[in-house]
Amino acid sequence: MRIMRAEQFNIDRQVEYGTPEQNEAVKSIVEAIRTEGDAALLRLTEQFDRVKLDASSLRVTEAEIQAAYDKVDADFLVAIREAAANVRTFHEKQMRNSWIDMQPDGTMLGQVLRPLKRVGVYVPGGKAAYPSSVLMNVIPAQVAGVPEIVMVTPPATGGQEGINPYILVAAAEAGVKEMYRIGGAQAVAALAYGTDTIAPVDKITGPGNIYVALAKRAVFGVVDIDSIAGPSEIAVLADDSADASYVAADLLSQAEHDEMASAVLVTASETLAEAVAAEVERQLALLPREAIARSSIDNYGAVLLVDSLDAGIDIINRMAPEHLEVLTADPMALLARIENAGAIFLGPYSSEPVGDYFAGPNHILPTNGTARFSSPVNVDDFLKKSSLIYYSKEALLANGSKIMTLARHEGLEGHARAIEIRLEREGGK
Amino acid sequence: MRIMRAEQFNIDRQVEYGTPEQNEAVKSIVEAIRTEGDAALLRLTEQFDRVKLDASSLRVTEAEIQAAYDKVDADFLVAIREAAANVRTFHEKQMRNSWIDMQPDGTMLGQVLRPLKRVGVYVPGGKAAYPSSVLMNVIPAQVAGVPEIVMVTPPATGGQEGINPYILVAAAEAGVKEMYRIGGAQAVAALAYGTDTIAPVDKITGPGNIYVALAKRAVFGVVDIDSIAGPSEIAVLADDSADASYVAADLLSQAEHDEMASAVLVTASETLAEAVAAEVERQLALLPREAIARSSIDNYGAVLLVDSLDAGIDIINRMAPEHLEVLTADPMALLARIENAGAIFLGPYSSEPVGDYFAGPNHILPTNGTARFSSPVNVDDFLKKSSLIYYSKEALLANGSKIMTLARHEGLEGHARAIEIRLEREGGK
Repeated sequence: MRIMRAEQFNIDRQVEYGTPEQNEAVKSIVEAIRTEGDAALLRLTEQFDRVKLDASSLRVTEAEIQAAYDKVDADFLVAIREAAANVRTFHEKQMRNSWIDMQPDGTMLGQVLRPLKRVGVYVPGGKAAYPSSVLMNVIPAQVAGVPEIVMVTPPATGGQEGINPYILVAAAEAGVKEMYRIGGAQAVAALAYGTDTIAPVDKITGPGNIYVALAKRAVFGVVDIDSIAGPSEIAVLADDSADASYVAADLLSQAEHDEMASAVLVTASETLAEAVAAEVERQLALLPREAIARSSIDNYGAVLLVDSLDAGIDIINRMAPEHLEVLTADPMALLARIENAGAIFLGPYSSEPVGDYFAGPNHILPTNGTARFSSPVNVDDFLKKSSLIYYSKEALLANGSKIMTLARHEGLEGHARAIEIRLEREGGK
Repeated sequence: MRIMRAEQFNIDRQVEYGTPEQNEAVKSIVEAIRTEGDAALLRLTEQFDRVKLDASSLRVTEAEIQAAYDKVDADFLVAIREAAANVRTFHEKQMRNSWIDMQPDGTMLGQVLRPLKRVGVYVPGGKAAYPSSVLMNVIPAQVAGVPEIVMVTPPATGGQEGINPYILVAAAEAGVKEMYRIGGAQAVAALAYGTDTIAPVDKITGPGNIYVALAKRAVFGVVDIDSIAGPSEIAVLADDSADASYVAADLLSQAEHDEMASAVLVTASETLAEAVAAEVERQLALLPREAIARSSIDNYGAVLLVDSLDAGIDIINRMAPEHLEVLTADPMALLARIENAGAIFLGPYSSEPVGDYFAGPNHILPTNGTARFSSPVNVDDFLKKSSLIYYSKEALLANGSKIMTLARHEGLEGHARAIEIRLEREGGK
């Protein structure tokens, strides 16, 4: 693993959202679904997933879900149920109420919060079929009160029979009743525009490959989407108190995701830098996904040397990493100065997989530097707000002329007259 | 004004986001700014706004702001200050704290909320130069705690000297210290990517014309954006208790915005329908912006007859209007059933301009049916969240094996080993 001065590292890596060819491909897929519906959905599923379906077989049946339960291990079921309970507990703490503010003159102003009505959750298939992602998408929507939650996931490819049973069980455990075996850009478009088989949703969440990301971007505006997921990232900020083998293991747990993943240690300790670099080499050789992790480490990984912990924090804030681990002597003392990070893991026992799988906070996090302005998936993402304005007669009479002044200074006489006609009638002015 | 059965009206009007030509134009503008910075910004400002600037004259000076104060009326200043105070009060009620949940085993989980660091506010120029929009964009960001708020607004065109002084005063009153005389797609791109003169922002908010909307869409991902604003809309749900002249005036206050604006009355009362249609004609003839309002009413306006108030509510929920006025005998009784609307104005004294200018809730609202999933501009839009995970040794030892089970079922051995190495060292398992 490279050791270099932090200044030499391309911190501001901006991953481009697809090639022009990929963008064109997605555009035509979205258009096909929008205009042809199910026919295009079936055709594209056959083309890309090499699975031939008809409209009646798009939906996953109750029998399949039951069969999936017979296929999964008992220890998995125990663990996913406890994880689901933790995720639910954490997200319930995020819930907010509608509120209304009553004023002495009888005016009431407020904010009404309501769940979205129908949400589509994308769950990747293939080598990235993650039951944990199902929980992380579905449970926040459920906690928000979304009545209809639909899951889509690609039909299995490469000789596998049907959808990964762990995905189906996770979805059933999370309470999903409606699941379709579709994936890629065509699934995103089907959720956005609807087909005869699949009713359109109000929002699409969940990570996917570049085609899924581009399709979500393409349908944004027709529906809402969550952040567009880029490759996964971890940054570890550590000092001499850190255990090099823990740091190395955590960097590798990120690097094994895919070749584009980024794992970076930021430290002022040359001793730790050397030790971690050596540990990464040692542990890398033992990993089943060694080739992927090695490619990630070689291309996007690095140990970055800084002059001080302060300088390290500056680098972290510029990176705005998806995951940040702080493995320093007193990690909590640094919390107030960490401005940009999707999830912050403090101390030696808060290894990233604790958050990926179990603790309760969401593992769907802003990537690609977007932690500067966006947030982990959370309950607010599934609530919409409406402003509430109930103005009393007294308030209108008292303030009408000021409202008219502002309207007329914007050249909007019609706005002023909507007030004026009331003042004339009701005896104000 | 047309009176028709609700079924005959195209409720699901989806405004397309620009022509292919407009999209191409915006794409090349964004690319020019990204690669050439200030040079492109000055060139495009000359091309589109017909104003020749140099880099040193992009920023609005303190002297210009002071001069603007000399140009605005005293009654405007009084009104805008009171409006600003109301907007601030309403948005302060939205503020939330970071929170942390402490568990008996020493684990701490939480959500850290922080303001974005730098936000760009777009304020349209020309005939849509609205000081009120400045307040509505800036104050929520300020309340959230955003330290750097930048305003951009087109340099005046068509022979006008400089920027509308009311815009400058509104911005100064709202507390903006950094303002640039740029507009259109080039301004959006400059905010997103930064130039030598203008530092890049984390988020861009504020309405604009189609080029501004397309540019915001194009830079989404590099920065955050608010909802993409479509033409303005009002729906009035009314019964026989409503005053036809109030309803007509409120419909026209929306229609005068622009030819694409939509103003619709939904009612089960044929009497009210006839009376409002006649009142609209009468009042229309008296409006300075008659031509615009008439075009809007003719093309996108209608009185929609329904069989009952219940049917009316269903139509409203399908429309998801930007503004909804409820002018019925007991408007509050209907509130719980209104699912989709940007802002809900209840009763005869809550005319839309009350909210547009003065009451406090934001007037930047989801258009084009997006109230199904999005919200008025609010303080949350300027806060980002980070998850906080501090796992105790005890918690890791108790739960480590379940975490490893979940990781291994996803084929992510590296994740399992990051836990395992700790369990081995710390004596768990």
